[in-house]
Amino acid sequence: MTYASAHAPAEAGMALEEVDTPALVVELDVMEANLTEMARRAAEAGVRLRPHSKTHKCAEISLRQMALGAVGVCCQKVSEAEAQVEHGVSNVLISNQVVGGRKIARLVDLAARARVGVCVDHPENVDELGRAAAAAKVALNVLVEIDVGASRCGVAPGAPAVALAERVASHPSLAFEGLQAYQGRAQHLRTVAEREAAICRAVELVTETRRALSSAGLPVETIAGAGTGTYELEAGSGVYNELQPGSYVFMDADYARNLGLDGGPVTTFEHSLFVYATVMSIPSDETAIVDAGLKAFSVDSGLPVPRPSDGGEYVGASDEHGKLSLAGTNRRYRLGEKVLLVPGHCDPTVNLYDWLVAVRGGTVESVWPVVGRGAVY
Amino acid sequence: MTYASAHAPAEAGMALEEVDTPALVVELDVMEANLTEMARRAAEAGVRLRPHSKTHKCAEISLRQMALGAVGVCCQKVSEAEAQVEHGVSNVLISNQVVGGRKIARLVDLAARARVGVCVDHPENVDELGRAAAAAKVALNVLVEIDVGASRCGVAPGAPAVALAERVASHPSLAFEGLQAYQGRAQHLRTVAEREAAICRAVELVTETRRALSSAGLPVETIAGAGTGTYELEAGSGVYNELQPGSYVFMDADYARNLGLDGGPVTTFEHSLFVYATVMSIPSDETAIVDAGLKAFSVDSGLPVPRPSDGGEYVGASDEHGKLSLAGTNRRYRLGEKVLLVPGHCDPTVNLYDWLVAVRGGTVESVWPVVGRGAVY
Repeated sequence: MTYASAHAPAEAGMALEEVDTPALVVELDVMEANLTEMARRAAEAGVRLRPHSKTHKCAEISLRQMALGAVGVCCQKVSEAEAQVEHGVSNVLISNQVVGGRKIARLVDLAARARVGVCVDHPENVDELGRAAAAAKVALNVLVEIDVGASRCGVAPGAPAVALAERVASHPSLAFEGLQAYQGRAQHLRTVAEREAAICRAVELVTETRRALSSAGLPVETIAGAGTGTYELEAGSGVYNELQPGSYVFMDADYARNLGLDGGPVTTFEHSLFVYATVMSIPSDETAIVDAGLKAFSVDSGLPVPRPSDGGEYVGASDEHGKLSLAGTNRRYRLGEKVLLVPGHCDPTVNLYDWLVAVRGGTVESVWPVVGRGAVY
Repeated sequence: MTYASAHAPAEAGMALEEVDTPALVVELDVMEANLTEMARRAAEAGVRLRPHSKTHKCAEISLRQMALGAVGVCCQKVSEAEAQVEHGVSNVLISNQVVGGRKIARLVDLAARARVGVCVDHPENVDELGRAAAAAKVALNVLVEIDVGASRCGVAPGAPAVALAERVASHPSLAFEGLQAYQGRAQHLRTVAEREAAICRAVELVTETRRALSSAGLPVETIAGAGTGTYELEAGSGVYNELQPGSYVFMDADYARNLGLDGGPVTTFEHSLFVYATVMSIPSDETAIVDAGLKAFSVDSGLPVPRPSDGGEYVGASDEHGKLSLAGTNRRYRLGEKVLLVPGHCDPTVNLYDWLVAVRGGTVESVWPVVGRGAVY
């Protein structure tokens, strides 16, 4: 066991200021408001919600999402799903391909303990899944993934999707359930018009494919997709019936750059996730060095951003250090002071931490294990 | 405990091809050659070697480095040092500031169990360390960090460094040992001339500060610094006497972009570290999607690079996916095929994994815990 897996940076009842740093902190009041708002919106649109647990990797949050009406959660990896099921989550969709004998063996083993779904985009993979499920005497629910513009995984919409669905249906141990049609590229398009154009095209491709499946006698129970950037569009499409957003739970600095109809930032969901850091060096009046760098944040979508009330700008990261600039502000830091920083990208940042410190009103309420941290296989 | 901490992706005796993916793989023959070469070069230059364990976070590798003559290892965090000491490493320098009551309490506790050094750059911090060490009846070895051009932590060379050293010496529980003078910015300057200019300036600043310390009656036992990009320059300076390189153990794609005297890449150390990944989707003849993305690599210093013999180019990463382009090659991937990818930046990539799969001749020889993974506090 690694050191970090055995030692939490906080305990319940502690004041936030006592939490060791860097630590991953969630403001519970904000997170709960985010959870409730998305549940309300999905219910209002009459679509199912299956939030993506790849964002939080935390069974405590999955169970709260399901208590608010979610049918289950998505995972991206078998190990992530195993971690969720081990901690009480009964319904998981691996919204991704599972390729290779070892992984498929674990998948069918998991299907004996929970309701398990998986996506496919290749006939060889379908056959391997079918044989493994049959040998293990389990049922797998299968979505055919189609490429609706993300240019990543997925077969082409229309005839190729029908051919693959027929292959799924030919295996008695596989239940063809519908389509996975996630438009990942659309999530961070900045304007409403760009996001609408991308999802409009995705809806056309899904509709055409559903029609072709119906003509082939294959009923489509589920059409799944959507993320935090576009969920309203899929929810209102009349075609998608299962939403998979993840980041809305926490929000991150990059999602906060998406713009709404009024040209201002989208404010439906607020930042609930922070990395808590300590000022460890003060090289000049206008500069502070914090103890959180590339091992405390993923910077793939930009550097972290100090909470507006803290002021300053995070201007550079090295492995274990971050540089805050206070130029142009009246803010001055003192040695040992602690700051809350909004990660640029929440999903890979959460994946760096073993513990999520849940705070309410400045006091630690719980310390949750990030059970899926590092579960990439 | 998280799922990944409990489940290794491989076991000794297994063929490489059977290892679950994504997995962090080290080629032992190459790593051992790297370790031996650096030990030989330090010995030849007559300087001590204290490799940085922040690169590998693995006690097994620290112990091998010490068996080859290293005096101990560097760590960047107290928790990282705790993990190393817990697994048998007897001599650690925290080449960084340790700020805050909780961290300092753990530091002095550690000093009762191992030879522990720490760096300082602020008088308040010196006093807090001095009081804590006195109360715990332990001795801390202290290096005054000076800024030799990295513009991160450290006091200014010359008089400010002397004042801080005098403050250290005023505490009976603190032993002033010398200077930490790491020029982090110089490591990835691409040409020899640029790296020489940067280290030449650092040597001037160190020399001037050592002279001022001597005039103040403060003997300097250790002048520490250097990384994989510049270690030859510090080793030959006649001033630095303790080298702290880390990345030479593994090398990464970014270090491989440094150029030598002949204008070609520096070839002293070779890539020993890879992320092993599986082709999980083949959207076109010229494209393959692998199961290793932003949670399998840190991309802060560029995307991973396929091993040359594998061909192709890693052109894009999302959270759990990577896209390989085969355009312009004759290479075609098959579903389920596994590939070795060189990380862009080894340190934060290693920090994503609980296990390091040690391979020799295509067979797994050992599976080492990355004991300091996530030990950022």
